[in-house]
Amino acid sequence: MAKANRKNGIPKKIGILTAGGDCPGINAAIRGVGKTAIVKYGMTVIGISDGFAGLIHKEFFELTESHLSGILTLGGTILGTSREKPFKGTGKKKEEFRKPMLIKEHYEQIGLDCLVCIGGNGTMKTAYMLAEGGLNVVGIPKTIDNDIWGTDVTFGFDSAVNIATEAIDRLHSTANSHKRIMVIELMGHNAGWLSLYSGMAGGGDLILIPEIPHDEKIIMDYLQKRADNNKPYSIVVVAEGINVPDGESSPGRYLARRIQEVTGLETRETVLGYIQRGGSPSPMDRVLASRFGAAGANLIAKGDFGRMVAHRNGEITSVKLSEVAGKTKLVSADDPMVKQAREMGTSFGDC
Amino acid sequence: MAKANRKNGIPKKIGILTAGGDCPGINAAIRGVGKTAIVKYGMTVIGISDGFAGLIHKEFFELTESHLSGILTLGGTILGTSREKPFKGTGKKKEEFRKPMLIKEHYEQIGLDCLVCIGGNGTMKTAYMLAEGGLNVVGIPKTIDNDIWGTDVTFGFDSAVNIATEAIDRLHSTANSHKRIMVIELMGHNAGWLSLYSGMAGGGDLILIPEIPHDEKIIMDYLQKRADNNKPYSIVVVAEGINVPDGESSPGRYLARRIQEVTGLETRETVLGYIQRGGSPSPMDRVLASRFGAAGANLIAKGDFGRMVAHRNGEITSVKLSEVAGKTKLVSADDPMVKQAREMGTSFGDC
Amino acid sequence: MAKANRKNGIPKKIGILTAGGDCPGINAAIRGVGKTAIVKYGMTVIGISDGFAGLIHKEFFELTESHLSGILTLGGTILGTSREKPFKGTGKKKEEFRKPMLIKEHYEQIGLDCLVCIGGNGTMKTAYMLAEGGLNVVGIPKTIDNDIWGTDVTFGFDSAVNIATEAIDRLHSTANSHKRIMVIELMGHNAGWLSLYSGMAGGGDLILIPEIPHDEKIIMDYLQKRADNNKPYSIVVVAEGINVPDGESSPGRYLARRIQEVTGLETRETVLGYIQRGGSPSPMDRVLASRFGAAGANLIAKGDFGRMVAHRNGEITSVKLSEVAGKTKLVSADDPMVKQAREMGTSFGDC
Amino acid sequence: MAKANRKNGIPKKIGILTAGGDCPGINAAIRGVGKTAIVKYGMTVIGISDGFAGLIHKEFFELTESHLSGILTLGGTILGTSREKPFKGTGKKKEEFRKPMLIKEHYEQIGLDCLVCIGGNGTMKTAYMLAEGGLNVVGIPKTIDNDIWGTDVTFGFDSAVNIATEAIDRLHSTANSHKRIMVIELMGHNAGWLSLYSGMAGGGDLILIPEIPHDEKIIMDYLQKRADNNKPYSIVVVAEGINVPDGESSPGRYLARRIQEVTGLETRETVLGYIQRGGSPSPMDRVLASRFGAAGANLIAKGDFGRMVAHRNGEITSVKLSEVAGKTKLVSADDPMVKQAREMGTSFGDC
Repeated sequence: MAKANRKNGIPKKIGILTAGGDCPGINAAIRGVGKTAIVKYGMTVIGISDGFAGLIHKEFFELTESHLSGILTLGGTILGTSREKPFKGTGKKKEEFRKPMLIKEHYEQIGLDCLVCIGGNGTMKTAYMLAEGGLNVVGIPKTIDNDIWGTDVTFGFDSAVNIATEAIDRLHSTANSHKRIMVIELMGHNAGWLSLYSGMAGGGDLILIPEIPHDEKIIMDYLQKRADNNKPYSIVVVAEGINVPDGESSPGRYLARRIQEVTGLETRETVLGYIQRGGSPSPMDRVLASRFGAAGANLIAKGDFGRMVAHRNGEITSVKLSEVAGKTKLVSADDPMVKQAREMGTSFGDC
Repeated sequence: MAKANRKNGIPKKIGILTAGGDCPGINAAIRGVGKTAIVKYGMTVIGISDGFAGLIHKEFFELTESHLSGILTLGGTILGTSREKPFKGTGKKKEEFRKPMLIKEHYEQIGLDCLVCIGGNGTMKTAYMLAEGGLNVVGIPKTIDNDIWGTDVTFGFDSAVNIATEAIDRLHSTANSHKRIMVIELMGHNAGWLSLYSGMAGGGDLILIPEIPHDEKIIMDYLQKRADNNKPYSIVVVAEGINVPDGESSPGRYLARRIQEVTGLETRETVLGYIQRGGSPSPMDRVLASRFGAAGANLIAKGDFGRMVAHRNGEITSVKLSEVAGKTKLVSADDPMVKQAREMGTSFGDC
Repeated sequence: MAKANRKNGIPKKIGILTAGGDCPGINAAIRGVGKTAIVKYGMTVIGISDGFAGLIHKEFFELTESHLSGILTLGGTILGTSREKPFKGTGKKKEEFRKPMLIKEHYEQIGLDCLVCIGGNGTMKTAYMLAEGGLNVVGIPKTIDNDIWGTDVTFGFDSAVNIATEAIDRLHSTANSHKRIMVIELMGHNAGWLSLYSGMAGGGDLILIPEIPHDEKIIMDYLQKRADNNKPYSIVVVAEGINVPDGESSPGRYLARRIQEVTGLETRETVLGYIQRGGSPSPMDRVLASRFGAAGANLIAKGDFGRMVAHRNGEITSVKLSEVAGKTKLVSADDPMVKQAREMGTSFGDC
Repeated sequence: MAKANRKNGIPKKIGILTAGGDCPGINAAIRGVGKTAIVKYGMTVIGISDGFAGLIHKEFFELTESHLSGILTLGGTILGTSREKPFKGTGKKKEEFRKPMLIKEHYEQIGLDCLVCIGGNGTMKTAYMLAEGGLNVVGIPKTIDNDIWGTDVTFGFDSAVNIATEAIDRLHSTANSHKRIMVIELMGHNAGWLSLYSGMAGGGDLILIPEIPHDEKIIMDYLQKRADNNKPYSIVVVAEGINVPDGESSPGRYLARRIQEVTGLETRETVLGYIQRGGSPSPMDRVLASRFGAAGANLIAKGDFGRMVAHRNGEITSVKLSEVAGKTKLVSADDPMVKQAREMGTSFGDC
């Protein structure tokens, strides 16, 4: 690991970048790192534009306290982001395989003593690889999917649960007035946390997530039985990553069509889409992001590199990037929350 | 027009039904009619279930003050609704062409002195036809589309504008962080009011509505020019009723695909869907719906049938159903608001 | 009236200031004026800081398009505001009585062709006086009180109704759970519009406003009768401007105390305070403010000075400042909305 | 401890009561207990009215599945609540000292096998005392104060943080526009959790809580210094339980007055009041309350009485009521969150 230039033993110039999909709370995290680094440690803070692309193309600017003022409540990221994955090059095209080297070169040219990478699973993996390549790196986890290994929770998740639940709340009144089945498709390619939490918070009758394989016959029987028992409507919450036949672009649309075909019950779908990722972070996400940011700055000050800040057992702590990289935190089929939802009558389409 | 049974000259038994798509504020309107009818006039109020279907199948119950308590803020309709259009029968099937007659028969059997029809354009047309057939009818307009002729505004619209604008607000942060074009498709088969208002409230750069035919080339040039001028992102608001090629099920999805193909700019779409119609009504919709309801009860008390309550020039008034039936209130291409939006730099895709 | 310097007959440099209490939508109005003035007319736009104080102290800066970007949804005013009333000087202190002359002097020094004054009743009066003194002035009305004469509605009002109604909604659950009377005091020194609308939207049982003198005995009897009729709780909405005994600083606190003393019913009060004026404007306020702003720029372009933009009978129009100055739009005791609220069972404490 | 009547070894009749101040999520908890008890275990569930008062006066009714439908999102408590503390009698008045015995008597008469007590610190203490007296009791913690010992978090807290933070957000725009200091007083007699979280989430500059004694001089110096450094405004978040001079009824009002007197800076206060406890629970509170409810039913089924359900280290678990009773969970002055807030520049008025 690179030795940091230090002022009284403390790194004096750090960079921050935000990579992957945006989510609420990123700016609060930038502010948390920045304020602590500047106010407490007197560091210089460099904002890298548009994720790893900014390091490849050397686009950056100094983040001063005035940049950090008023961004606590702001959605998105003031630094911009991109899906650039520098290690995903083919190894054949020069402009591709040179990216990691360019990052290292520019890191040194800018004179960074540490790079803070705010992002999701992919970003943590890249951060780990850069750390292995000799950069001082600190990771800060963010995602609305809550699927980052090593931390109990990530910021962005609470905001997304709020948005998704509000949408489910709205569907109840329409479902009830028209005696319809309403299917809502939420984000979550691999992990069903968002659907699980929003589904429970919104009183979903059926919750389908990638981790719990469903059986269409069971779904149809369950919905038919509800109708037979004079439940006038049903709410079906579906994570976008559940298994559907090839060629179906949206599991929500697919399922709504199938339910109506098979049961004859009037069914409509809503694909909630990008609004799940946007807007001002929830208060709890602002707190978590601020604390993650502050914790990141403290790790740097201690020279404790190659780690990701985390929230575990109610405390802000950190884990090695090497433990996190390449893993995903999924919903277990016997998660206590799944069990409790079942006990209250919710079906997961599997039995 | 039928002569009302009156107690001291005032009708003593009235029915209420809610028909067509649900929207926020219907329950507030039911409460407005019911409370005024019961508290002020001592009428008996009958709730008809599921729109005109309830009159055809004779499903109804007495609405007492306790039914009306706590529903002011409730989304949907406590009476249920349906898309039943009793005059749309073929004239060939007996069970179809008999519907209007069944409605009249059951109206008389229940002993109604007036029927309050809460609904949209279709409902107002049916209400008019029933009035012509001898029933005492009062219409109360509701729709999130704001397209009912004869009234400046309908309840449901303000709530829908709130929901749609909040969604657009959320898209801004994602669009900005990723430098993307975000296309959002809103409800509105015929009328563009919702897209016009939400688009202006949400700072939409391009607003496409059915009333103003757009030209794809102009759209592409406009978006390209914004990108060339270093505007990092654009928000495109699209009403679902705009003209797109045959076979395209969603204009939002179609346009997003086209924009990316033609301009090469990264583009994503969101189809907001049913959440636009659900949930608790906005305060202003509660006020408007309550006032419409109270005004409806007052019309009945005066024996002023065959009319729809309306909001015109800042006042609650009423218009003849015969003037309303079969018409739609559309956005005019030279509406002052369209003009002002243009002056502030918004494009409607037409020039 | 001063003759404007014009470029092709159009004023080329205009100033904007915001005065009096802040409210949601001011920034949208600034943006509406600015965008239209710059994009459509090519004017130079000067932002004056902190209301009339900024003209007295010559504090200003050029507002460019980049200042106007992203402020549509922002609460407060980017220009700052103050309670400075330049004509309220004693006539004895030089620094006081010279203010109007300083304003005129600086207006000319800056080279303004017109001054846009965004504010409430007090601001419109000052704007009128400046117009009489030879300045080209256009007024844009804003207030959460909705009490500006000459316009059916002002921006800020809808947002405040939303906030106040949400608060009343919250009080319902506490009132119901504890079987309490909840008194909520809302803003409104002279006009009861906010209490009237929020009270109706929130299902207030008793609404007290300055325009309708109340009788404490009637209030107590009304609340006692509700309790006797097994209504488990009551919501009392009070405008801060209602008449209470001398020395009582808060009518809400006073009334809550009195109600509990006289009726013995458990009673609690909430004084909602400044949150009624803050935060992002509602979508409808953004639309209204944007349109008022655009209309203001259009008035200037036509050289139509000495007027206030207004919303009348569903249209954006304008009225002479001379007709507006010094007047207040109050709730009439026989306002149709008051009548309808009474018909649905609401009391105004007067009979 | 009493031996439960069991059907196949499982208690067959349980009672639920809700006591103390209401808060968002209580109905979700009632639903969680009730649904699990009925659906999974086939128990009969009795709702006791108005807290312990309902057991004293024998007011109760059977809670069926239809009572539990639609209450997940509802604020307050469908059972009603009261401040009745049955063990707080003087020992002199017969009607007072007999209360615990009446509770036992009626518990037996109704034929309860277990009593679920949903409430805060006071309720958990009473629950413990009843358990000691031989009743089968399970406690479920609720409070917006988050001060119940033995659980990391309680439902109600997240909702209250949301409401308080939204209020602080609104104050920012007014504070900024008028260059004022805004003081906001939040609930929290003993514990400062709500002020700490909302203050951090809302970007409060100064956070005053009961657990960290403040020094007025330090407060004044801090605010003056901010003003001197051209920070145009400051937000001061104050828990209602902080120390102020005798006779001052509201610390928020007191401090605002003092700040203005001492610093001369314009200062306003807002006392947020009861809206912090009302309205629909946040999604996360609905999840937590549902899970607490389900966990409570599971404890009963296992005959595991005398315990309170809890959330510890990310898991739903339970603790002995004997460990909880009489304790309060306060903010420690060296809580990591306090430390991080300081590092980002927030003052707690103590140094």
